[in-house]
Amino acid sequence: MPLTKHIEQHFTATDTVRDIVIGMSDGLTVPFALAAGISGAVTANGLVVTAGLAEIAAGSIAMGLGGYLAARTDNEHFTSEREREWEETESVPDAEKTEVADIFRSYDLPESQISLLVESISSNRDKWVDFMMRFELGLETPKPKRARQSALTIALSYIAGGMIPLTPYILIHDLHTALLVSVIVTLAALFIFGFIKGRFTGANPLISGGQTILVGGLAAAAAFGLARLIG
Amino acid sequence: MPLTKHIEQHFTATDTVRDIVIGMSDGLTVPFALAAGISGAVTANGLVVTAGLAEIAAGSIAMGLGGYLAARTDNEHFTSEREREWEETESVPDAEKTEVADIFRSYDLPESQISLLVESISSNRDKWVDFMMRFELGLETPKPKRARQSALTIALSYIAGGMIPLTPYILIHDLHTALLVSVIVTLAALFIFGFIKGRFTGANPLISGGQTILVGGLAAAAAFGLARLIG
Repeated sequence: MPLTKHIEQHFTATDTVRDIVIGMSDGLTVPFALAAGISGAVTANGLVVTAGLAEIAAGSIAMGLGGYLAARTDNEHFTSEREREWEETESVPDAEKTEVADIFRSYDLPESQISLLVESISSNRDKWVDFMMRFELGLETPKPKRARQSALTIALSYIAGGMIPLTPYILIHDLHTALLVSVIVTLAALFIFGFIKGRFTGANPLISGGQTILVGGLAAAAAFGLARLIG
Repeated sequence: MPLTKHIEQHFTATDTVRDIVIGMSDGLTVPFALAAGISGAVTANGLVVTAGLAEIAAGSIAMGLGGYLAARTDNEHFTSEREREWEETESVPDAEKTEVADIFRSYDLPESQISLLVESISSNRDKWVDFMMRFELGLETPKPKRARQSALTIALSYIAGGMIPLTPYILIHDLHTALLVSVIVTLAALFIFGFIKGRFTGANPLISGGQTILVGGLAAAAAFGLARLIG
């Protein structure tokens, strides 16, 4: 069971862009919402900044290190699944051949062609196992060396994203003004971010921008309302 | 018997379990770290609870709604890619046939078989396009109705996970005691969660439990240290 988040699997851009999107998407949203929420319950900036920075530290570690370990688990899972498929081609080859045949049966091929195909694929055990990994289990060969780079990119993008809503509270003394500036700056940043993300994913950039604003805005409104209610 | 074990493993690793793991993993970690962090900068429980609940609201919306919209984007992407493949089988059928042949070539099939296969697959345009989606682009047919269910499961798991570290601050008046109880209860919960997760993913449960404790503990320590430094 892959534990890594399954967002935007078919990016036209690189894995790095995908990591930046994952990190910045949450980084812009959650610290923004939290800071706005706390500002509804306190009277001075100090605690908004403290909580915001604590959140950025916690969130970037959870996403970065958590993502790194999840990717490592996925790699181990792939290795152990591959070993099991390898053993099954040895211990129950007929069952495995039936599985190959079933995959092709769904494409309405004549049985004579299917059996030739099954014989060809199963004649090379390594390719046979590769075939089962990809088309029976749907597992892609992992890139183990990417896990660390990916974790770092996600964590740094989370920090970069989180500093955008927080900076107004650091620079502007009046809490009310800081909240207002933070909301305006972050909604603008969310829109630009969503717009650019849309261009990478092939989605309509305007709709994509609108959606990231919606998520960030709703999260902030909910946090603000809740904090007001209790605070 | 290997085959039974195989089926069983697939059965246990349902999409719902995966969603619970994703939501609870972050839900246990980030609100825990944030609450611990803030408790290093304040003198009473009130603000820890307010910030914690605000974070849970923000985080569950960001993960749930954000995940839902990402899944919808994936679905739209699948639909548009499928339309493009459909058009390509009309406008450049020979190029598409060559692509089918190339897929089989990578499994070392004899050329005579390959041309028969290509003819069979391309004789039914709908199945042909299905074949290209899966074997050329590696795209699985999305389950659009699952997106909402998945988003809800992730959000509720985040809330359930987040309430574990927060409850001690709500129930226990003394901040120091509440922090201590929250740390003990949450580290235990992280270990149990990681242990169970390990059993689902096939990883060593003890190592998996140790890793979730490591991520949560590091995130909390960083948030606490940072908040102390500024607060």
